[in-house]
Amino acid sequence: MTPEERLSHLGIALPPPAPPGGGYVTWVISGHLILTSGQLPWRDGKLAYVGRLGAELTIEDGYQAARLSAINALAQLEQGLGRLSRISRILRLDGYVHTAPGFHDHPRVLDGASELLNEVFGEQGRHTRTALGISEMPFNAATQLVVWAEIGTWTP
Amino acid sequence: MTPEERLSHLGIALPPPAPPGGGYVTWVISGHLILTSGQLPWRDGKLAYVGRLGAELTIEDGYQAARLSAINALAQLEQGLGRLSRISRILRLDGYVHTAPGFHDHPRVLDGASELLNEVFGEQGRHTRTALGISEMPFNAATQLVVWAEIGTWTP
Amino acid sequence: MTPEERLSHLGIALPPPAPPGGGYVTWVISGHLILTSGQLPWRDGKLAYVGRLGAELTIEDGYQAARLSAINALAQLEQGLGRLSRISRILRLDGYVHTAPGFHDHPRVLDGASELLNEVFGEQGRHTRTALGISEMPFNAATQLVVWAEIGTWTP
Repeated sequence: MTPEERLSHLGIALPPPAPPGGGYVTWVISGHLILTSGQLPWRDGKLAYVGRLGAELTIEDGYQAARLSAINALAQLEQGLGRLSRISRILRLDGYVHTAPGFHDHPRVLDGASELLNEVFGEQGRHTRTALGISEMPFNAATQLVVWAEIGTWTP
Repeated sequence: MTPEERLSHLGIALPPPAPPGGGYVTWVISGHLILTSGQLPWRDGKLAYVGRLGAELTIEDGYQAARLSAINALAQLEQGLGRLSRISRILRLDGYVHTAPGFHDHPRVLDGASELLNEVFGEQGRHTRTALGISEMPFNAATQLVVWAEIGTWTP
Repeated sequence: MTPEERLSHLGIALPPPAPPGGGYVTWVISGHLILTSGQLPWRDGKLAYVGRLGAELTIEDGYQAARLSAINALAQLEQGLGRLSRISRILRLDGYVHTAPGFHDHPRVLDGASELLNEVFGEQGRHTRTALGISEMPFNAATQLVVWAEIGTWTP
């Protein structure tokens, strides 16, 4: 199955790519690399998850925020490449979690994004990851993610 | 206009590249990529902006700190490449803002760097960006930036 | 001397690579780049350094945590490449320090990693670096590091 078929199978329709929040662009291509800007959990033009893990938000909220941020990243990659099936490998997920003091369960939150990438891209979705707690996030967002992908020939 | 001509037009003379603050180097080239180390708002060997956004510093201070950090990054790129006009594209600005609790206006701060890159490189300055709030910054600096650029042939 | 010979000279035996802490992989190769996931100061399956610099931990603790995190990163690179001597250059150390309020000595902590990379790889170990203070780290770890390296032909 292609990534597009897997998304459809999961019942996910990619949203329009969110516009940038300042004087920058939302993706860039250099050689075989496509790289997104930081992706927040936008839904219909509003942040669906605001606040901090370990205070206003539960781990399940954080998991959904990370998943939604990853869906927004896929929308950027699709815009940049025309179709997701041009991706030969997801290389990297930089995961930033908005944390209150004492919160240490970043991996459970970021698995919301990692599991989506693994479901959509299969073996080619197996990515490296960072997991960092951020004390203050732009617009008080719950999560921010960056996705790096390698552009190549799709091998189903 | 070349980036050098635009800098001159803006009245900006690049400073000497700041030395590293430890056992590392300030830029590296691999293939078509040049990447800087984290750049702080140094001016004449001293940090021009120290403290946190949302506490000791205003958004305008932060904007100027980000702009100055970006000027320092350009000095590193110029040292690495010999001349800025070897850059075919600014790929990335990783933006870290030293924040006090409750500060969420990272994008307005980082636009100090993004707008400078856009002014100096025009269409080729259009870059991706992350915007993260850091609770404690080396030497209490206000901002830290990383710039990634693609080395190629300048197309004016 | 090869990196393997230098490690031996330093009395360092690389540990088994630590498994991932979630739905991701610990290294990825794309073209001439190998990139690790975030590396924590694991030793024998346990975190050897937990807590925050400037509170529970001293700078010397942090230095050792960073050095241990770097040793774990080398174990990942060795697993990915078969042997460390395939590395032509260490490109990057992304350094994240778990900090309590008011701690600003990140460079002294991260030199624990940088000095190890310089010792093991010599001139080819000279890397760029970021140094960021993180308020909450996965599993309360003291440090998290990412290493990027260029794959090429070893020139002793």
